[in-house]
Amino acid sequence: MTTIRDVAKKAGVSVATVSRFLNSTGYVSQEAAAAVTAAVAELQYELNPVARSLNTKKSNLIGLILPDITNPFFPELARAVEDVALSYGYTVILCNSDEKPEKEKNYIETLKKKYIAGFIVASNQLDAPHYANANLPIVALDRAINEKIPTISSNNKEGAILGTKALLDRGCKNILFLRGPEELNPANDRYDGFMETIQQTDVNFRVVFCPFHFADSQEIAEQALRDDPSIDGIFASSDVSAAGALKAASLLGIAVPDALQVVGFDGVALGEMLTPGLTTVAQDVYKMGAIAARVLIKRIENQEIEQHFYQVPVKLVIRGTTRSVTE
Amino acid sequence: MTTIRDVAKKAGVSVATVSRFLNSTGYVSQEAAAAVTAAVAELQYELNPVARSLNTKKSNLIGLILPDITNPFFPELARAVEDVALSYGYTVILCNSDEKPEKEKNYIETLKKKYIAGFIVASNQLDAPHYANANLPIVALDRAINEKIPTISSNNKEGAILGTKALLDRGCKNILFLRGPEELNPANDRYDGFMETIQQTDVNFRVVFCPFHFADSQEIAEQALRDDPSIDGIFASSDVSAAGALKAASLLGIAVPDALQVVGFDGVALGEMLTPGLTTVAQDVYKMGAIAARVLIKRIENQEIEQHFYQVPVKLVIRGTTRSVTE
Repeated sequence: MTTIRDVAKKAGVSVATVSRFLNSTGYVSQEAAAAVTAAVAELQYELNPVARSLNTKKSNLIGLILPDITNPFFPELARAVEDVALSYGYTVILCNSDEKPEKEKNYIETLKKKYIAGFIVASNQLDAPHYANANLPIVALDRAINEKIPTISSNNKEGAILGTKALLDRGCKNILFLRGPEELNPANDRYDGFMETIQQTDVNFRVVFCPFHFADSQEIAEQALRDDPSIDGIFASSDVSAAGALKAASLLGIAVPDALQVVGFDGVALGEMLTPGLTTVAQDVYKMGAIAARVLIKRIENQEIEQHFYQVPVKLVIRGTTRSVTE
Repeated sequence: MTTIRDVAKKAGVSVATVSRFLNSTGYVSQEAAAAVTAAVAELQYELNPVARSLNTKKSNLIGLILPDITNPFFPELARAVEDVALSYGYTVILCNSDEKPEKEKNYIETLKKKYIAGFIVASNQLDAPHYANANLPIVALDRAINEKIPTISSNNKEGAILGTKALLDRGCKNILFLRGPEELNPANDRYDGFMETIQQTDVNFRVVFCPFHFADSQEIAEQALRDDPSIDGIFASSDVSAAGALKAASLLGIAVPDALQVVGFDGVALGEMLTPGLTTVAQDVYKMGAIAARVLIKRIENQEIEQHFYQVPVKLVIRGTTRSVTE
């Protein structure tokens, strides 16, 4: 294997000069730079990336911290991040925090020691200062950490307005809102959109907290439907929760969409697989992941970023869990 | 930050001695070892893991290569690998090959340069020699590479026998088998189990190839059901394909399980979310991932492994897409 010594010998310069030039860690004369470049090309010298990490304290590894890899929203997001990162020569390390702060912290600490180039954080467990002190490029995805950290998210409030109106336009008179976890910004924005819209009407509604998990959502929806059989619309803050609500309706023998209409939020592939297919507020998951990767790489490479806050538009996807619009 | 020089000074030995001892790369006297150990403890010296990678050409990174992270089987597998790896101090790098050989190759080459400790391979794109030549501990998960590489898989043939019998016991007289991709060993084992069982009966059957993707499966099942409306049972080689078959039945107005019974294979959470809930041959996904991680770590740490081939039992999970057993 060709070593840095071979390159130095061929170029007629010192090993230190080759290292300074290749790692951009100090001044090298134009002549030396040209000689090293020629020697590298001729010898097909490949800079050892671990050695390079040590010298420059940088790598081409990006850490992507996800809260729950078994929620289909996150694999779809991960795939987009990975596609874009790969096209720029970065490798993505996926970290599944399982919504546990210790796991999230362990990943950050472990990967910082590997001289990771930056993080995309879609999880939600640690306090903002923990990230602010990381001294690394960070991008927040589907959450906000603080105003200094670039954030990519859907227009969640707008989406919730769309979803609520979809139920109102289709004649719902008593709507159950499955509100996502209080500590999640996207969930709170969706709640705001729902409240703002519903309060302009005289339609009955109730709000219950509901984690983004299928079984919990099924149980919570089932209880609410038993408590109030006149509920004729459910707006769930995630597709997984909507799947739980649909399952609850099926177990209680409530016909969807005739007696109960359901709208989800996410737009993951799961929604198509359900029967009836799920009407949902679709996020542009791929675009969110792709922007996050691009912004992080710009930060890593010290390029300007145009904006600090990217809000990706959402759209309503009508499938079988809602009826035709009431005239 | 404490450096190796501080440790050497405190211990009264040379930097080379400290390095030899900490990286286990050469002989160190008992006295020197004791002095270094004491100095490390006193100074709370933490060995730089990237420097350590360079010295020992080892890291605590494990690469997990998955063919399709959006198929829910693989996130469930990844979670198990990650849980066990973390408990042994290893960090998992997830690599989504998207079933593309170039991506799989790029991951292996990139990560080898990072001195990755080993790979768990659940993908299926590269020829066996590529892995055999990797000079790294490798474990095959849900596929077989060659007899030298430890392999963890479900008892797929046994599972297919269970699934086929489930349809036969419930009165099916004309069964469609959605056969998985021919290049996948697990898919072929499932095919063998189906064929062995069905050929012992006089029940009609047909076999069609079907990728493990929802939309393709829906289309293929819909075509088959149109061609032969007397099909009264579908055995799909994956849960995602079964979801496609269920959707096809729903679109064609075929009642499940009254007119058509469906059995899947995988046991992923998706099966519970569907309506009716999917009867399926459940793999012990978590156990498969956990064994793979444990076996790989033993190989990395040069420990004996008890066996080269682990076959994890499967079980039939009865839900709503099948009827009661015919007396």
